[in-house]
Amino acid sequence: MTNDSSVVVPAPPYHDVEFRVRYAETDQMGVVYHTNYLVWCEVGRTDFIRARGMSYADMERAGIGLAVSELSARFHAAARYDDMIRVRTSLTQARSRGVVFDYLITNADSGARLVSARTALIAIDPTGRPVSLPADLRALFGRV
Amino acid sequence: MTNDSSVVVPAPPYHDVEFRVRYAETDQMGVVYHTNYLVWCEVGRTDFIRARGMSYADMERAGIGLAVSELSARFHAAARYDDMIRVRTSLTQARSRGVVFDYLITNADSGARLVSARTALIAIDPTGRPVSLPADLRALFGRV
Amino acid sequence: MTNDSSVVVPAPPYHDVEFRVRYAETDQMGVVYHTNYLVWCEVGRTDFIRARGMSYADMERAGIGLAVSELSARFHAAARYDDMIRVRTSLTQARSRGVVFDYLITNADSGARLVSARTALIAIDPTGRPVSLPADLRALFGRV
Amino acid sequence: MTNDSSVVVPAPPYHDVEFRVRYAETDQMGVVYHTNYLVWCEVGRTDFIRARGMSYADMERAGIGLAVSELSARFHAAARYDDMIRVRTSLTQARSRGVVFDYLITNADSGARLVSARTALIAIDPTGRPVSLPADLRALFGRV
Repeated sequence: MTNDSSVVVPAPPYHDVEFRVRYAETDQMGVVYHTNYLVWCEVGRTDFIRARGMSYADMERAGIGLAVSELSARFHAAARYDDMIRVRTSLTQARSRGVVFDYLITNADSGARLVSARTALIAIDPTGRPVSLPADLRALFGRV
Repeated sequence: MTNDSSVVVPAPPYHDVEFRVRYAETDQMGVVYHTNYLVWCEVGRTDFIRARGMSYADMERAGIGLAVSELSARFHAAARYDDMIRVRTSLTQARSRGVVFDYLITNADSGARLVSARTALIAIDPTGRPVSLPADLRALFGRV
Repeated sequence: MTNDSSVVVPAPPYHDVEFRVRYAETDQMGVVYHTNYLVWCEVGRTDFIRARGMSYADMERAGIGLAVSELSARFHAAARYDDMIRVRTSLTQARSRGVVFDYLITNADSGARLVSARTALIAIDPTGRPVSLPADLRALFGRV
Repeated sequence: MTNDSSVVVPAPPYHDVEFRVRYAETDQMGVVYHTNYLVWCEVGRTDFIRARGMSYADMERAGIGLAVSELSARFHAAARYDDMIRVRTSLTQARSRGVVFDYLITNADSGARLVSARTALIAIDPTGRPVSLPADLRALFGRV
């Protein structure tokens, strides 16, 4: 994402969600398969939006989707089956056509840092075309 | 599925598809996670339908989906990462409102039997309501 | 599973676990992809064992795994993204070499029945060979 | 990855692998769920290594794993169920302790660019500790 954002969110508040690692999420290295951390980011994002008073499911029913356009992640340490995981999600940028979320995934018991990630999302209509975020969503994301 | 089927397919021809096990499909036991074999059944089913001259993607675009209503599987031996897998799919029953497929999953190199499975599928419209299979699909599934 | 079980568990107590449907678990029919319900059964099974005072992760570290040998499921109604799900797990059979669990997956808000399933699991050692359940596990599964 | 690489691979040769999108890989937007493209990168990586005359499965059996330490991706356009996909994998950096792969995922029929991605991988031993790549692997990755 470039820096020409119309709305900058300098010190975003965060939202935490916790859950346990599922057996299905491990691989033969004995740890969580790396793309599953990115599924967890989406769990964090969904919960962040709910904590703001809206459900992403409702957003989609109202005709606005958020599609991931860019993604980056650093893998610091591995999570294991049955570990309690915490995903801390923060809103880093909110613009007319999209938002950027940052994630810090930790072991909820030890506090060990596992993965840090960022996703840029763009607003799309049901046909997949980029659109501007409607006023209520801009208010939701802008209210920091 | 009960035995009151209107169309019985006594000796169904089969269709084979082959592919390699992905790393993502393993779990910490060092073998393929059990639900992934059932994803492979769907790969076999898709290819079976394509071999009959139709694509399941086209079926859905034409407004007819096939939803799994029942499923059973026996796990005989484990597949491992990078193994070449063969899924043999056969049509076991075709009725006005649904079809039954049988699957035999083997190691394509050794021939070892890994999983045998069966799925019953019902025809649904885009709202999820059960419907009768249209004539062209009945012809496709009935032509044995 | 045949009926020659050495330990019959006539009215098994159950254990409930709840969580929300993830976006990653949906498919293009707009509902949960069918094999994901079976991943949820494993979440239920893990939590059932924990509620009995042991962790399945510890079991594996102690050299005993439980591998799914048979599985069956009936799909009654579909779950959707962000639905709150309840998995009710009960122990149906406990024998020297394996156990059988039953699952009832419902919508936790409406109570609607979504999926009923059964899995048979056999005890294996780290090389994948079937073994007898050690005494502490037989006690754990037998205590009803 | 910083630029102090001991071995630079200026014009890396690439390796292509093709396969069809599975139903399980779609989500309720009607397109492929975004993390599945990253699973496909691993399919490309596995096939790249095989094309060099080694199997990643053998590497792991010999005690050397490659763990993803960094990942980035840009999502240009969406893949759909049953699309034929091409993953073009190239080796961008090879160093004593790790390698960097680049990926271009396209629709194999139309040539449309879908996703471009990069992963940095570090060599690890079976306990997960970073190690130097053994000589044969350095030769394999260095031979360009």
